[in-house]
Amino acid sequence: MQLAISEAKKGIYTTRPNPAVGSLIVKDGRIIGTGFHPKAGQPHAEVFALRQARNSGFDTQGACAYVTLEPCSHTGRTPPCADALINAGIRRVVVASLDPNPKVAGNGIKKLKAAGIEVIVGVCADEAMALNAGFLKAMATGMPYVRLKMAGSIDGRTAMASGESKWITGNEAREDVQKLRAMSAAIITGSGTILADDPLLTVRSQQLGVAIDQIPAPKIVVVDRRGRIQKGAHQIFNHHDVLLWREDLTTLLKQLVSVHQCYDVMVEAGASLSGAFIASGLVDELIVYQAPCILGHTARSMFACEVQTLAHQHRFDLTSVDKIGRDLRMIYKTLNT
Amino acid sequence: MQLAISEAKKGIYTTRPNPAVGSLIVKDGRIIGTGFHPKAGQPHAEVFALRQARNSGFDTQGACAYVTLEPCSHTGRTPPCADALINAGIRRVVVASLDPNPKVAGNGIKKLKAAGIEVIVGVCADEAMALNAGFLKAMATGMPYVRLKMAGSIDGRTAMASGESKWITGNEAREDVQKLRAMSAAIITGSGTILADDPLLTVRSQQLGVAIDQIPAPKIVVVDRRGRIQKGAHQIFNHHDVLLWREDLTTLLKQLVSVHQCYDVMVEAGASLSGAFIASGLVDELIVYQAPCILGHTARSMFACEVQTLAHQHRFDLTSVDKIGRDLRMIYKTLNT
Repeated sequence: MQLAISEAKKGIYTTRPNPAVGSLIVKDGRIIGTGFHPKAGQPHAEVFALRQARNSGFDTQGACAYVTLEPCSHTGRTPPCADALINAGIRRVVVASLDPNPKVAGNGIKKLKAAGIEVIVGVCADEAMALNAGFLKAMATGMPYVRLKMAGSIDGRTAMASGESKWITGNEAREDVQKLRAMSAAIITGSGTILADDPLLTVRSQQLGVAIDQIPAPKIVVVDRRGRIQKGAHQIFNHHDVLLWREDLTTLLKQLVSVHQCYDVMVEAGASLSGAFIASGLVDELIVYQAPCILGHTARSMFACEVQTLAHQHRFDLTSVDKIGRDLRMIYKTLNT
Repeated sequence: MQLAISEAKKGIYTTRPNPAVGSLIVKDGRIIGTGFHPKAGQPHAEVFALRQARNSGFDTQGACAYVTLEPCSHTGRTPPCADALINAGIRRVVVASLDPNPKVAGNGIKKLKAAGIEVIVGVCADEAMALNAGFLKAMATGMPYVRLKMAGSIDGRTAMASGESKWITGNEAREDVQKLRAMSAAIITGSGTILADDPLLTVRSQQLGVAIDQIPAPKIVVVDRRGRIQKGAHQIFNHHDVLLWREDLTTLLKQLVSVHQCYDVMVEAGASLSGAFIASGLVDELIVYQAPCILGHTARSMFACEVQTLAHQHRFDLTSVDKIGRDLRMIYKTLNT
């Protein structure tokens, strides 16, 4: 299953709105086919894996299939994978996680079992589910998975009082942010960031292991409660189809799922909008790049949000810490207390 | 030498003002004696190691000695170790680092060589020197090694606007601070901390691997530029011999070395004094305990110091990061740019 997960990872920047899925076909203790889902509209992982086995001259009759997500049972743009596995004579299917998509939701497993195939579910489930945090959350709740990225100093400052902020973190950290952008279906920023920095918010990195033109363009959202942004007046409008948003954040997130099929959303904004997201409890994951410097108490804060007492603090659980160049990257998950 | 360094570490809380030193005696590829310096006035590491070898019935004639610091050549409260090694018939001495103490400073090596002993210097030098950062810096420069400890949130906040701050970091992090206190000859705090928290600043932990009564009491310094503290009026005066300091910080640090033989100094203070230490470039090492929470922009800052432009930022080099309970501990060394 670890190998199937590695296969799935090859698709994390390109499959959306579909989930990233990987598959292996194993016969007599030997891997005879591997595959992953590369892009919406293209065949699913199982089909690629079966195809590779056959093209290499193997008979899939009696083989075992590993899949990171429950095989689909419905005909979308491609025929159902459950049928493909049945027709290939697969004897046993090992699945990492179920598909909460109402069109599947256990029906894939049922179909396989009805055809007499042995099915095992739940192998490396957490790891496989982490690949599709947005897809799984959106299918289950109608809300996207929200990652908030922030960069600052040891003392939690993001810019000098003057606004000067280029650059606090190093090259490697900024390169790492490109990965976050590339895996996001939508990037949310604020009017303050547009007015101050006039950013491009494009995916530019050549180090993602996939051609940039294969990555679906993210939906760019500019939250502009005070109506300070004029359409077309900033360079971001030349590079993206921008949604200017003036209503509340929860409605925005719901709409990103229901209207735009954006399941993985990244907040890349200043202290005001970032603070508003934190304060409203809408953040699933916090990614902090911490530069090894002190900027002092007059420099700008990371989050503009008012916490009255320690009991009201926003709590997180540290899930990983890595040195990225000379900076630290901390990933936190929101603790629901 | 790694084993000799492990021996030396047994003394890091108790040897001051002496350095922590470890030693091994090896003969025919076998360790026949180990020792460390436990406390000022007691024999040095080499003497304990030679004694253990003899007590176990070994002949030290022709053996090899490993020592983490250059053996002393002068008679202090104990006779010179160089003589002990010569008299024991040691054939070769491997030394990690030289002793910058002007009373030794190469004389120990000279004495051994003059007696026909082969001497090798510099094995695991960095690691051995890290054990005695304070002693080595003080001998070389007359200034102590200054560790500044700070605890805060992801967004660099240490307390609520109201002053509420108990507790932001967890038990494990607070227990870890006990190790820093135990290895410090002096602890510097500010009048603000005394007035707000009335702390004890005692070493209380039972988890240091050494009896608390073996740890020399640290010198407590309260920096009180505005004369707000009255001798005896706070509980800290019941537990320590306190130095109330009203002059500048550089003079304080020099005096801690020259008058009080305090070579390892810890700053455990609030934003004002900590910020003053950072701003004056007097900190060698910054130890930050970061709790996985956000306290918002109205909470209190880590460091009260004004940095005008990014070019004036205080830069550090991250030397280690560890998860301590649910918190992170980052250790930074000051970058001299």
